[in-house]
Amino acid sequence: MALVVQKYGGSSVADADGIKRVARRVVDTKKAGNDVVVIVSAMGDTTDDLLDLAGQVTPTPPPRELDMLLTAGERMSAALLAMATMQLGVQARSFTGSQAGVITTEQHGDARIIDITPSRITSALAEGDIAIIAGFQGVSQSTKDITTLGRGASDTTAVALAAAMGADVCEIYTDVDGVFTADPRIVPTARKIDAISYEEMLEMAASGAKVLHLRCVEYARRYGVTVHVRSSFSTKTGTWVTADPATLATAQRSTNSGVRGADEQGEQMEQAIISGVAHDRSEAKITVVGVPDKPGKAAAIFEALAAAEINLDMIVQNVSAAATGLTDVSFTLPKTDGKTAIKALEKAKADVGFDSLQYDDQIGKVSLIGAGMRSHPGVSARFFAALAATGVNIEMISTSEIRISVVTRAEDVDTAVRAVHTAFGLDSEQVEAVVYGGTGR
Amino acid sequence: MALVVQKYGGSSVADADGIKRVARRVVDTKKAGNDVVVIVSAMGDTTDDLLDLAGQVTPTPPPRELDMLLTAGERMSAALLAMATMQLGVQARSFTGSQAGVITTEQHGDARIIDITPSRITSALAEGDIAIIAGFQGVSQSTKDITTLGRGASDTTAVALAAAMGADVCEIYTDVDGVFTADPRIVPTARKIDAISYEEMLEMAASGAKVLHLRCVEYARRYGVTVHVRSSFSTKTGTWVTADPATLATAQRSTNSGVRGADEQGEQMEQAIISGVAHDRSEAKITVVGVPDKPGKAAAIFEALAAAEINLDMIVQNVSAAATGLTDVSFTLPKTDGKTAIKALEKAKADVGFDSLQYDDQIGKVSLIGAGMRSHPGVSARFFAALAATGVNIEMISTSEIRISVVTRAEDVDTAVRAVHTAFGLDSEQVEAVVYGGTGR
Repeated sequence: MALVVQKYGGSSVADADGIKRVARRVVDTKKAGNDVVVIVSAMGDTTDDLLDLAGQVTPTPPPRELDMLLTAGERMSAALLAMATMQLGVQARSFTGSQAGVITTEQHGDARIIDITPSRITSALAEGDIAIIAGFQGVSQSTKDITTLGRGASDTTAVALAAAMGADVCEIYTDVDGVFTADPRIVPTARKIDAISYEEMLEMAASGAKVLHLRCVEYARRYGVTVHVRSSFSTKTGTWVTADPATLATAQRSTNSGVRGADEQGEQMEQAIISGVAHDRSEAKITVVGVPDKPGKAAAIFEALAAAEINLDMIVQNVSAAATGLTDVSFTLPKTDGKTAIKALEKAKADVGFDSLQYDDQIGKVSLIGAGMRSHPGVSARFFAALAATGVNIEMISTSEIRISVVTRAEDVDTAVRAVHTAFGLDSEQVEAVVYGGTGR
Repeated sequence: MALVVQKYGGSSVADADGIKRVARRVVDTKKAGNDVVVIVSAMGDTTDDLLDLAGQVTPTPPPRELDMLLTAGERMSAALLAMATMQLGVQARSFTGSQAGVITTEQHGDARIIDITPSRITSALAEGDIAIIAGFQGVSQSTKDITTLGRGASDTTAVALAAAMGADVCEIYTDVDGVFTADPRIVPTARKIDAISYEEMLEMAASGAKVLHLRCVEYARRYGVTVHVRSSFSTKTGTWVTADPATLATAQRSTNSGVRGADEQGEQMEQAIISGVAHDRSEAKITVVGVPDKPGKAAAIFEALAAAEINLDMIVQNVSAAATGLTDVSFTLPKTDGKTAIKALEKAKADVGFDSLQYDDQIGKVSLIGAGMRSHPGVSARFFAALAATGVNIEMISTSEIRISVVTRAEDVDTAVRAVHTAFGLDSEQVEAVVYGGTGR
């Protein structure tokens, strides 16, 4: 008997109707002959509402208490989903993260999973029940307090449970049909990707794609969990995320041929070269102007930032001007870390000796992702040509084996994404995506 | 160092402002040099809202899941209150009923407390922290599932914890100033009672007074816990409920002298004869008409009702008519049990052989309570005279050592309460009560 782990996000269980619809999907999965474990997020905007309530009481909610408060949300939806499932005549029981054996570090608000000991879940399944688990939470190994796992962590909990229980698949249900070749709200002709590798999905997530959380994909890759991202509003197949997507290829898969010319016909023998185009408007750029071009200066900048626990994304250093012996160092980072980074650099100013700092929060990042570009020269050339043809200016470039990213003006992001999507033959003949609302979470 | 246990109801913590106000009260109590343990209910109408949500998902919420759902409410308010307390610079920690060691039976929705093992609370106090406990909940001894203790049980949890920890006092905070000689919304000249015995408070609660739950008073009496019912909106002294209220008497206490005449002056050497007038509109009356006046017939009626688990209040049997050999048996019961009772009696009809059933849900009950009436003849005479003078018809009478109750038409209740209140000299010269809204819970 197959074991299916399913995760339903907040938009899938936004209200009583959503809960009932999810219950029907859960019951159908069980009646198809599977053991079913469900991880569920809080309903709709509950988590944000609870954060808001906490904010009304104190500007600095203590982490332990905030976790006690926020976990009420998932507890409620797990109980309601169990009720709806039993109403359809199928036995189900709800469990908190603690009862499900999700053991974590003690870092409230951002705990990491140390271990999963799902014995109560296994027992429930053995009794023929469906187990419905409150996502986003666990219990601290050291303090025995309830912890939350950081935003977007219900996906990770689901994958972790799937790994611990040796599940056949982990289905991540959301309000879009799967992972698309680009954000359908920007590119109406984006196609749903049938199958994608862990690596490419990691790059997509890191480059701005919001459908699957980076952390969850990392966990799936590390433990070899097959993930199926699909819509809770339909029964269509979604996107499979796995080690070897080529074996899951179907005749309907995109036959784009990358640099060989968009008019080539025939079945693709190899995995598609390009998976998709991601974009990201959540970053800002900081330029440290006039850094003395001496050994150790750049290092001092990055040490100061590391000490402030700033996560950097792209880093670019220009060639120093021979006349001045000075150079500029630019990097991108989450906008939310902007102030902290500026403060850290101001403190390091005397030590590094730079002239000034420039802060730019009007940037956007556009990335092309595809495992095939490793072995196909000319991809970057086509990419830059497409951008040039639209008149979009490239400000920074960063590449990996399977990704090319550029920084442009934020207002140029949509144009750039569409141009690149078309240039690589990713456009479908019709508008394929159905967007049900929400942010794809 | 004194240990003070405080309980705050839903109307005291209805919103963020309420939470902050309660936090200030809690901190003041701590700063006065006490150890403080707080039991808190869910905010405002949260419990009702959650019940409503469950109802939208299924008409028959499974008890285990309903408890998982409802306990989210108290969890939230406990966490928020802890946050607000820390915001005022005083260490506090929230605990679920389970973490506080409230061990119960496994009856979801109406669990009974088996034991309280508050070691985590004691440790928290020893570290100088304030312990804030989610009310209304515990953990089942047998199944280890979360249980709720039935409506109005936060008061009982508070008293039970006070008993288990040997607290000096259990303060029950509500939105009225204390227990009044009558409902201030019916009798504006009702006085706040300074001190009342457990027995009288039991009778008040059983007779319809809503300020303290019957179950909580029972627990306090059994374990000798001193209870202080007071308003969370002011610092005025409320009503002390204790074994020996006379020792707590103050010069301001009502010097009503019962049957000795309202004009007598001087300090009362004994406890006041009459504590107050309670009323109840939640009951209905059933009359079993034409019961054969033979041995065993009445017993068969009450056996049928007991088998249906109906709680009866007043029972009256008329003398049988010599001519017919038939009698009528009337009794009162909660309106909510009306249908079930009628069904049970219909089933017993053949066995008992009565003629018909009458159902009357337009009754009201008015009760006079006072420990002093035991030793003062003439109380009932004065009581019935007061009612007769207003033209209120008495339909049923029931008495105990310290209580006289009558059933009247529901529409006559207010008139009856006022008349009796005045007749026994309970009216104050001015309107004393401040009603902050809500039902006094």
